[in-house]
Amino acid sequence: MSKISLQGRDLLSITDLSRSEIEHIFKIAKDMEIIVNNRTKSQLLADKILAALFFQPSTRTRLSFTSAMQRLGGTVLGFHSATASRAGDPSYAESLEDTALMVSYYADIIVVRHPEASAPYIFAEVADIPVISGGCGSISAFKGGSSGEHPTQCLLDLYTIYKKRGNLDNLTILCNGNMTSRATTTLCYSMSIFNSCRVLLNYPKRLEFPDDFRKRLEELKVNFEIINSLEDNIPKADVIYVTTMKNALGLKVTPDEYVVNRTKLEAKAKDGCLVMHPLPRTDEIAKDVDDTPYGAYFEEAWNGLPIRMALLAMILGRA
Amino acid sequence: MSKISLQGRDLLSITDLSRSEIEHIFKIAKDMEIIVNNRTKSQLLADKILAALFFQPSTRTRLSFTSAMQRLGGTVLGFHSATASRAGDPSYAESLEDTALMVSYYADIIVVRHPEASAPYIFAEVADIPVISGGCGSISAFKGGSSGEHPTQCLLDLYTIYKKRGNLDNLTILCNGNMTSRATTTLCYSMSIFNSCRVLLNYPKRLEFPDDFRKRLEELKVNFEIINSLEDNIPKADVIYVTTMKNALGLKVTPDEYVVNRTKLEAKAKDGCLVMHPLPRTDEIAKDVDDTPYGAYFEEAWNGLPIRMALLAMILGRA
Amino acid sequence: MSKISLQGRDLLSITDLSRSEIEHIFKIAKDMEIIVNNRTKSQLLADKILAALFFQPSTRTRLSFTSAMQRLGGTVLGFHSATASRAGDPSYAESLEDTALMVSYYADIIVVRHPEASAPYIFAEVADIPVISGGCGSISAFKGGSSGEHPTQCLLDLYTIYKKRGNLDNLTILCNGNMTSRATTTLCYSMSIFNSCRVLLNYPKRLEFPDDFRKRLEELKVNFEIINSLEDNIPKADVIYVTTMKNALGLKVTPDEYVVNRTKLEAKAKDGCLVMHPLPRTDEIAKDVDDTPYGAYFEEAWNGLPIRMALLAMILGRA
Repeated sequence: MSKISLQGRDLLSITDLSRSEIEHIFKIAKDMEIIVNNRTKSQLLADKILAALFFQPSTRTRLSFTSAMQRLGGTVLGFHSATASRAGDPSYAESLEDTALMVSYYADIIVVRHPEASAPYIFAEVADIPVISGGCGSISAFKGGSSGEHPTQCLLDLYTIYKKRGNLDNLTILCNGNMTSRATTTLCYSMSIFNSCRVLLNYPKRLEFPDDFRKRLEELKVNFEIINSLEDNIPKADVIYVTTMKNALGLKVTPDEYVVNRTKLEAKAKDGCLVMHPLPRTDEIAKDVDDTPYGAYFEEAWNGLPIRMALLAMILGRA
Repeated sequence: MSKISLQGRDLLSITDLSRSEIEHIFKIAKDMEIIVNNRTKSQLLADKILAALFFQPSTRTRLSFTSAMQRLGGTVLGFHSATASRAGDPSYAESLEDTALMVSYYADIIVVRHPEASAPYIFAEVADIPVISGGCGSISAFKGGSSGEHPTQCLLDLYTIYKKRGNLDNLTILCNGNMTSRATTTLCYSMSIFNSCRVLLNYPKRLEFPDDFRKRLEELKVNFEIINSLEDNIPKADVIYVTTMKNALGLKVTPDEYVVNRTKLEAKAKDGCLVMHPLPRTDEIAKDVDDTPYGAYFEEAWNGLPIRMALLAMILGRA
Repeated sequence: MSKISLQGRDLLSITDLSRSEIEHIFKIAKDMEIIVNNRTKSQLLADKILAALFFQPSTRTRLSFTSAMQRLGGTVLGFHSATASRAGDPSYAESLEDTALMVSYYADIIVVRHPEASAPYIFAEVADIPVISGGCGSISAFKGGSSGEHPTQCLLDLYTIYKKRGNLDNLTILCNGNMTSRATTTLCYSMSIFNSCRVLLNYPKRLEFPDDFRKRLEELKVNFEIINSLEDNIPKADVIYVTTMKNALGLKVTPDEYVVNRTKLEAKAKDGCLVMHPLPRTDEIAKDVDDTPYGAYFEEAWNGLPIRMALLAMILGRA
């Protein structure tokens, strides 16, 4: 069997990765946890530069990529929002192709966040250095490519489940919230990679269930079901994956029927059921869940660090 | 006598520190001056990451913490303003608790600036890494805690006085300007740590003298007096501590009676009187003071660097 | 002959440099290309800090200076736009002098971009560390100094021509676009340094041809001619230097007579004619030029990296 390598690869969609590649990423991430836990740095990528190009604001993804690169001895350049860059000045309106080519001269690997789902594909086509999507697109369709995705978020979500359960087969994931969330869609797509998984989708019916989300679930043969009650379905869930919906609903408070709280979990959830969230959360997960065995969202955020260290090291050919 | 250590400590209020701790910080800062003067770097914190979280804009504090960390070989991540981060997107409105926990995974020490005086206390409670206030709150009261403070500004102010005078007892500090300035309030509070000091407070009576500033001065038994003339009181001052007031007054020019200039100083000031300012200044200190022996505000800015290097090194257990 | 050195020098105007200094910069840049091509880092400036102070947004200049510093092992601090800094808060309105002095404490070399042409001169006068202009001013006159310039852009432009042609004498440069572009004006000024060069200036007559651009061309004895047709003059050009004009014209599309495209070039251009652009471009150079032998604008962007590495290393006395 040949050695698994991601050297020089792009990571644009979770379905770019095979099961064995994902499991290998987890193996490297496990090694990276030593560095994180010791709060130290390696020099593995000391000679490398990460370009972090965030055309949309981000705290978690940007800081965790930055921390990952620094923990491996590397450096980071880039921008935090479109307005801090000429690239965001519509009167100049440089093409993404020109931006991608330019940045490829200045760095060794790119992570890009952009409102357009096509953006990382454009970057990857032009740049002769590897490109990682840091969360691109909302769900709006991209011609010939996939809808919006957040593949590194998905990997840390899967890693969190894997660490807690030991495997990723036979999963039932209840997604509760906004079906246009890049984190939700990507996690659902990833279920096509493992065996006998299904996803239950619960969302306020005033919100959109995007056509291209449905279409891609069908293409990938993901076993999915749209449901109409959080509480009734909690007992079936191995994972409850929650995203913010109140803003999309134009509400100040999430409707109670969509809130995950301790009472509901203690009444209905299986032992070992995990409550997850890509964060930032507002009130859709009550604070009283934080200290229960169900609450796994902070561990998720932590896991983003070893996962992103593993990806950087592997793609740059050092692991 | 046990060795003085700040390892693992937070720095939220100047009154968290004892006199001997402050003097020890000065001793370490003196050593750090060698690195600054040689324009070189040490590798003391090469394995460490500083999270610089500025929810309000800053030039001086942010750049000087960044320079301090880099001069010690460490790296910095964070954000420069609330809008460059989801943390500043009110429609997401992540709690400070969630932000603090997340950042504690990505860095080894946090410096935070925030408009709420309570913010660094929240960060410190949640994060399991040390937290330094980079200037939080205006004077608005914080339930159960202190009003707004800027403790590292205070330390560099005290260090400046200490270097110029050799000690910090028997001081008369004339504060002239805006009594809601975090730099002014913190310097006044710090006078409770030293012997036989007093503060004279001169401000345009159209501006606020905040209740909780008064209350805390009383709690700390600071010897203070509200005065009504800059010029009449200059002869008493060892330090004239000036802050910007014209913006708060809605004026384009500072009223002459509050301006510190060369003529007033040469007519009235003691030998060795220091004119200080946390900067940025506008016109409340005339430029003709810059080159007099009184003007100490640029030296203050310079002193921020060794002071912050000392704090980072001590709190991270390396000095 | 004494060794050529730029140690401790400022770079505010291209005319600060002699021909032999420029040629020496090219020689060092050539060495730096090895580091860039190997996608690695040197430790030449590992002990140094670059302050990158961008009062106006920039992608290319800022990222390429950052990359240059990182490729040489150094670190970078600063701000990306005036609003991320108190320096951009008009109610505080700190003088550039005060900002310059403060930053000179925190870094070892400064690159500054500012809308005022005088800004880098003010920085250089106050700071006791070297200052490089990262593109300042539009063409608006600066009392006693030069109009707006972008000297490092000019150096990379000259380096691009030098690499392609082997020398910089006997050049005819056709500038097509906006005559207030700092890149255009600086390149024109630089022609005074070499032998028997001339510049042909083609621009929409609705746009300004600034008085101080003309005045300085005359002072420098640059052989220049205002022309009225791109196409008629293409045959004369060794270099066609293009800048964006549609925004200044208030148009969504550049008028066809000012667009450089493949058809025009193949019909009229000399062998070896170079089409250049400081980027970002919009539609004034058609994409079909990218893959012709004429298109040199991406190579220009790439050349920015070794040129800026050379400047940093030389000015900091390490090359």
